[in-house]
Amino acid sequence: MPRFKLTIEYDGRPYVGWQRQENGWSVQAAIEGAILGFCGESIALKGAGRTDAGVHATGQVAHVDLARDWDTETVRDALNAHLRQEGVSILLAERTDETFDARFSARKRHYLYRILNRRPPPALLAGKVWWVAKPLDVAAMDRAAKRLLGTHDFSTFRASQCQAKSPVRTMERLDVVAAPGEEVHIHASAQSFLHNQIRSFAGSLKLIGEGRWSEDDLVAALEARDRKRCGPVAPPDGLYLTRVDYE
Amino acid sequence: MPRFKLTIEYDGRPYVGWQRQENGWSVQAAIEGAILGFCGESIALKGAGRTDAGVHATGQVAHVDLARDWDTETVRDALNAHLRQEGVSILLAERTDETFDARFSARKRHYLYRILNRRPPPALLAGKVWWVAKPLDVAAMDRAAKRLLGTHDFSTFRASQCQAKSPVRTMERLDVVAAPGEEVHIHASAQSFLHNQIRSFAGSLKLIGEGRWSEDDLVAALEARDRKRCGPVAPPDGLYLTRVDYE
Repeated sequence: MPRFKLTIEYDGRPYVGWQRQENGWSVQAAIEGAILGFCGESIALKGAGRTDAGVHATGQVAHVDLARDWDTETVRDALNAHLRQEGVSILLAERTDETFDARFSARKRHYLYRILNRRPPPALLAGKVWWVAKPLDVAAMDRAAKRLLGTHDFSTFRASQCQAKSPVRTMERLDVVAAPGEEVHIHASAQSFLHNQIRSFAGSLKLIGEGRWSEDDLVAALEARDRKRCGPVAPPDGLYLTRVDYE
Repeated sequence: MPRFKLTIEYDGRPYVGWQRQENGWSVQAAIEGAILGFCGESIALKGAGRTDAGVHATGQVAHVDLARDWDTETVRDALNAHLRQEGVSILLAERTDETFDARFSARKRHYLYRILNRRPPPALLAGKVWWVAKPLDVAAMDRAAKRLLGTHDFSTFRASQCQAKSPVRTMERLDVVAAPGEEVHIHASAQSFLHNQIRSFAGSLKLIGEGRWSEDDLVAALEARDRKRCGPVAPPDGLYLTRVDYE
């Protein structure tokens, strides 16, 4: 059966997360519903990143096998027509071969965490950023972030319900930069992440930005490999899955 | 009584517009409610721009007279605390004198109209941009926009319910530029605008961008001074009041 690769944008707020769940409406279920509406096929979509409730995407990737070798633009436009009532948009549909797996072929996942760093709360960006009123020392956050690069046991920065077999991951990028509109952006890239890892990083790096943690406090928290040593986990609002790289 | 100047950001979607109306909840009423909650005073707020339902602001300006000479940061933070359930944020509160009038002292108003120009519909920017799927010729739109600069009778680009005494306005800036994220931005500045003027411009300039109108068609529409010659009025979603200049 012809396999299609989909690149997907969504507003995570109305959803229980990417993955189909018993307790509510998921992005995956919304797209599977659109596929059913488009070609009458009831299929399971596989995604590259299992984003949590409230987490957004500008470049989630999924794959699906359809019975017919549809024109790719038809697939994209028809799914978008069926998704009109959802906060989900198919940016791109491409034909790929059966060796491609959106989850297991992924070589690198890129996330952006957006902080709105100003005294007044967000009106236009409500739900799309983490609002931090106290001024952050972005340079200190960036220096500290560099201490998390490379291969480590990230047990401290992992949700208790994380299902990964190993707490070891390799951080390839972790940059903290000032961005227009009084924002602070955290850019994180790795082949894969633990559950809540970036939100755990963001919450701990915020403590550094506020001067409540030193760089050494962060390293000590990492080396403790103890979930209780993590800073308060940042909310999902600011997190975006922006890109997935394949070979 | 001490006069305060407020700079305001809002998401226009839940509101009937800036101005208090019988038929629904307005931004003005929301802020007046916050002032009542803050200091128990029932006052009328005066705004610089009467934005329509669904129109946003990143720099609306209003003034209010309060009984006490409050610290300006207290005014801002207290109003924001009372506005927590609203899509409205007070960016800045400043003390000003009684000669300042948010509406009548305004020398220039600046608006931004955002078009998302791509085939897939918006997910993250739903309600915040005008989605135009067909590729637009931005250079042609910008050239045509220049023909609207200066002082003209803008009857063609004015809502039938417009209450202004004269249809003559002086356009000081009208630029159409490509912007990141597959957006096209229209920047418009003038001392004042007619009702629906920028949305009328945006709708007509889109016809030029799509190649359905020539530059001469736009000029002919302007010179006809006839509302029926206007292109379809663009939706409120993409419009932002970004700044108001005072002497």
